[in-house]
Amino acid sequence: MYALAERLYPICRSITGEGVRETLRILQEYAPISIHEVPTGTQVFDWEVPKEWNISQAWIKNSAGEKVVDFMDHSLHVLSYSIPIHKILPLSQLRDHLYSLPDQPDLIPYRTSYYQSNWGFCLSHRQLEALEDGDYEVCISSSLEAGSLTYAEYLLPGRSKDEFIFSTHVCHPSLANDNLSGVVMLIHLLRKLQHQDLRYSYRFLFVPGTIGSICWLAQNADKLATIKGGLIASLLGDGGKFHYKLSRHEDSIIDKVAQFVLTEMEVDHEVIPFSPYGYDERQYGSPGINLAVGSLTRSTFGSFPQYHTSADNLDFIQPRHLAQSYQLYSAVVDLLELNRTYVNLSPMGEPQLGRRGLYDAIGGASDQKAMQMAILWVLNMSDGTHDAIDVAHKSNLPSSLIVKVCALLLDKGLLRESD
Amino acid sequence: MYALAERLYPICRSITGEGVRETLRILQEYAPISIHEVPTGTQVFDWEVPKEWNISQAWIKNSAGEKVVDFMDHSLHVLSYSIPIHKILPLSQLRDHLYSLPDQPDLIPYRTSYYQSNWGFCLSHRQLEALEDGDYEVCISSSLEAGSLTYAEYLLPGRSKDEFIFSTHVCHPSLANDNLSGVVMLIHLLRKLQHQDLRYSYRFLFVPGTIGSICWLAQNADKLATIKGGLIASLLGDGGKFHYKLSRHEDSIIDKVAQFVLTEMEVDHEVIPFSPYGYDERQYGSPGINLAVGSLTRSTFGSFPQYHTSADNLDFIQPRHLAQSYQLYSAVVDLLELNRTYVNLSPMGEPQLGRRGLYDAIGGASDQKAMQMAILWVLNMSDGTHDAIDVAHKSNLPSSLIVKVCALLLDKGLLRESD
Amino acid sequence: MYALAERLYPICRSITGEGVRETLRILQEYAPISIHEVPTGTQVFDWEVPKEWNISQAWIKNSAGEKVVDFMDHSLHVLSYSIPIHKILPLSQLRDHLYSLPDQPDLIPYRTSYYQSNWGFCLSHRQLEALEDGDYEVCISSSLEAGSLTYAEYLLPGRSKDEFIFSTHVCHPSLANDNLSGVVMLIHLLRKLQHQDLRYSYRFLFVPGTIGSICWLAQNADKLATIKGGLIASLLGDGGKFHYKLSRHEDSIIDKVAQFVLTEMEVDHEVIPFSPYGYDERQYGSPGINLAVGSLTRSTFGSFPQYHTSADNLDFIQPRHLAQSYQLYSAVVDLLELNRTYVNLSPMGEPQLGRRGLYDAIGGASDQKAMQMAILWVLNMSDGTHDAIDVAHKSNLPSSLIVKVCALLLDKGLLRESD
Repeated sequence: MYALAERLYPICRSITGEGVRETLRILQEYAPISIHEVPTGTQVFDWEVPKEWNISQAWIKNSAGEKVVDFMDHSLHVLSYSIPIHKILPLSQLRDHLYSLPDQPDLIPYRTSYYQSNWGFCLSHRQLEALEDGDYEVCISSSLEAGSLTYAEYLLPGRSKDEFIFSTHVCHPSLANDNLSGVVMLIHLLRKLQHQDLRYSYRFLFVPGTIGSICWLAQNADKLATIKGGLIASLLGDGGKFHYKLSRHEDSIIDKVAQFVLTEMEVDHEVIPFSPYGYDERQYGSPGINLAVGSLTRSTFGSFPQYHTSADNLDFIQPRHLAQSYQLYSAVVDLLELNRTYVNLSPMGEPQLGRRGLYDAIGGASDQKAMQMAILWVLNMSDGTHDAIDVAHKSNLPSSLIVKVCALLLDKGLLRESD
Repeated sequence: MYALAERLYPICRSITGEGVRETLRILQEYAPISIHEVPTGTQVFDWEVPKEWNISQAWIKNSAGEKVVDFMDHSLHVLSYSIPIHKILPLSQLRDHLYSLPDQPDLIPYRTSYYQSNWGFCLSHRQLEALEDGDYEVCISSSLEAGSLTYAEYLLPGRSKDEFIFSTHVCHPSLANDNLSGVVMLIHLLRKLQHQDLRYSYRFLFVPGTIGSICWLAQNADKLATIKGGLIASLLGDGGKFHYKLSRHEDSIIDKVAQFVLTEMEVDHEVIPFSPYGYDERQYGSPGINLAVGSLTRSTFGSFPQYHTSADNLDFIQPRHLAQSYQLYSAVVDLLELNRTYVNLSPMGEPQLGRRGLYDAIGGASDQKAMQMAILWVLNMSDGTHDAIDVAHKSNLPSSLIVKVCALLLDKGLLRESD
Repeated sequence: MYALAERLYPICRSITGEGVRETLRILQEYAPISIHEVPTGTQVFDWEVPKEWNISQAWIKNSAGEKVVDFMDHSLHVLSYSIPIHKILPLSQLRDHLYSLPDQPDLIPYRTSYYQSNWGFCLSHRQLEALEDGDYEVCISSSLEAGSLTYAEYLLPGRSKDEFIFSTHVCHPSLANDNLSGVVMLIHLLRKLQHQDLRYSYRFLFVPGTIGSICWLAQNADKLATIKGGLIASLLGDGGKFHYKLSRHEDSIIDKVAQFVLTEMEVDHEVIPFSPYGYDERQYGSPGINLAVGSLTRSTFGSFPQYHTSADNLDFIQPRHLAQSYQLYSAVVDLLELNRTYVNLSPMGEPQLGRRGLYDAIGGASDQKAMQMAILWVLNMSDGTHDAIDVAHKSNLPSSLIVKVCALLLDKGLLRESD
């Protein structure tokens, strides 16, 4: 995952343009995701797909003709969606188009102006302060033309049409944790699940933030009914503790599974309430869409000093953090797959476990105690209203044991799966 | 408010009679409340309006002919509803008709005997102990005759027939906190609201305790369906912290608003459960009436040493305490008026805020952060099931900001009021 | 109760056989319980009634012909349901059939092998260690033949067909707390209730554990609909604090009453969740039966060192502990009998208490305060949705006072019993 992040890092992505397109094409080397183009001007709910933005170069030269800021050095140096410009202007006028972080003077900020026509450069505050009075030549060779918005999608079909979505934003330029971490983790999760026999269907969405998820939603309104929930994957490479942000439903199956996995795997974590701020859970969780999409991240949106600066670089993310995030997402899928609700087929009194080899022979011994307790709990709670997580929660036994016992009792003819 | 309390303080009120009538007439100088008379003998639910009680003088003379207790000194000196009497009797017999407070020897108690024929005097325990053996002449020039019970009412009509009631008891003689404080605060609240354009209707009731509210309820059974809640106003002039006693419903809109106002205004307060004891919430909250009437007081019923004694005088109440109580009641009305439930008219994804001038131009800046958060919260929660208080509570933003943002979004065509 | 326990203690009971039969016959001296026999081979739900087991003697002799273990000394010495055997074998082979407790070297364990053919002896670990190498003669004169399972039952009919069950297991040999304590407490409770005029019907079940309750359930499926709840009576003679294990319903009337009695009687106790492990609540609370049967014990199942050993003897149980348990069960029945839901017949405002003699004459005095508060609470909450326990709980007044006030108000015509 880290190697892929290294490869994607230099690319200048935005909400449209070749940067996203190139990124998604690289992802296709890993898994057969399909790339979709939505033409400029397409109406998507309350929004319209904007013009496509591309950029070849951008620099500022001082009066001596030296490049003092160059987009070739760092994709963050240009205000995203800058209109093309080439002119000479004094520093006093140039300043209106320069963005820096006085409190973090060594870092380049990340700034965008998607829906308001503007141009600008982002630079470290030290760079800004070093600029001497005088005239500067600025050049942004960008284009804003009719084109399309690009996103990618892949549906892993399961035995059921019921599906869960994993969505991540692919519109950020050279920022590692936000959100190459989410992109590379998801493509590897897709690769892993691709060859499994799955109960549920899983849809992977690699979309530009906000406008991308809105495009997908607007064009797939007929698919929403079978989406049982989902997760926003982002901020998965840093060393912070995990955060599960509840879906707008707060008590959906994805909320239940994600929280249970975090607790049972005993990783340091915090559960935070839904809020209509952050990543694309804002769109999936808008009142008219109302999908149960939570967000499983390490650090949270906007909470770390490297956030939206050049310090969110490849040093900031670590292979072991990505690996742990991947394990956690895998565990969520595993539990979604295995968690079921059963009906006890011998519900009048306990079934006689002994003659089925489910009870140790000498009554009173305490061997295999946990297994026996799990058998009793599963039998008792299997009335069609409790799933394996409920049984694990109430019995305080590991979900893996409950799932194993369910399989055993199903095999012995003592359970059937609930409708 | 305090000046009006000073004027009303000396009057000897009871559940019927000239004292209440005079009090209500004085209130008419402040607001056009209508005075109603319910004739003695009128059946009101399980009760019958009692004879009207009036009193001109009452005293005890010792054997030397000196008045040792005189109603002219303090209206508490006579047992309320004392029958007329004039006779001479020895101290040993007189004692059966004397009420004092041995634990508070300087204070005169307040005692009544509305529904059991009796006569008596209330005096300080020091006065009682100073009485020497011997004969005493007692005189109570009172009348108990067919007449009427008097109460006052005013309905401020709003755009909706749905109404809230504010009720206060006007039957106590020279007691300041209980309940001139409630009387003077309510009449000023009425004056304030009188010239406002109101959404809800507000009914103000100035009634003798118990029998007065029962009279009003019995004679206005047809009006109960549109009463959405109310408050008992009393004990509002002392320096104690505020107490909100929940209505019998415990989760009605008045309960929600009163608690939210107390919390948001950061006044020291406590919320206490409903109980069928106290003031007229007992009647409004009887099982067959079941109105959502809470009680918003400073100190609580019966909880302070001055309660129902001559120490509940004009020194015990303070203009600034009355003023704060008035502010709180005003804030309750304001929030009742402004708190609404909306429906987001652009519920599929977020509406594009930028083109409506609702988003700061450069994405990433943090100016107007609270306003933007409020916009997102209102849009997200406006699905017809959450009112402004819910949004304020969940977002942890001020209700005033939420209300302001609702108005803004309504104006922008992004919301409609919920049915 | 203790004397009866002394008499029953030596008898060797098991899940079938003369031991149980003799025990139940002795109980018939105390109350006219009916004894039922269910023939070997009868299918009961998933189970089959096993062969009847009886035993006359069982011993181990050493090579010198001395009895080193003798069933005549203690009924625990033989593995319950041991098949008959008589042979000589070396210690090395005998060891496979010997059960001891290395951690409690002086105690004889209690072991059974009902459904797997086996034989064995239980002995103290010191006895086991004292055995010298060599040949031993073992003899178990037992029989396993077609016969029947024996249980006893008694239905105390009440005015209502709705019933509560008290069930206890009678299958343990010489173990005092588990469960002669439950047996003797229940038979005395039955004797007490036998001559009372009862509102509910009460069914007493003296059954072998697991297979006995399953037999009763299988043969009485038509009676389950009127069973409103019940209690498993066991572990009632030790000095531990009380434990109420919730029924599978967790909020049924028996759960409410049992918890309220424990709290109100201020006995040290703990409420524990339902679990499908323990005594016959496992069967009554199986998903297809789903009766609201809780368990009211002192110490809990398996939690004390004497559990299922020879130390659970007559010294371990105390008359005073049995007596307190009996008081508690009696209080549960009393509250079940008296707890009702009423409807206020004068629900519009408060009824006038004074003219009905329900109010002290001089308003303001605090005599009979609790009684008056109880009257107000009962009147207010009597809307057909709250029972006496609800009123007691909410008012923080004793249930005995609430019940008394309900009777008084019923008598005054102010209440009627709810349908």
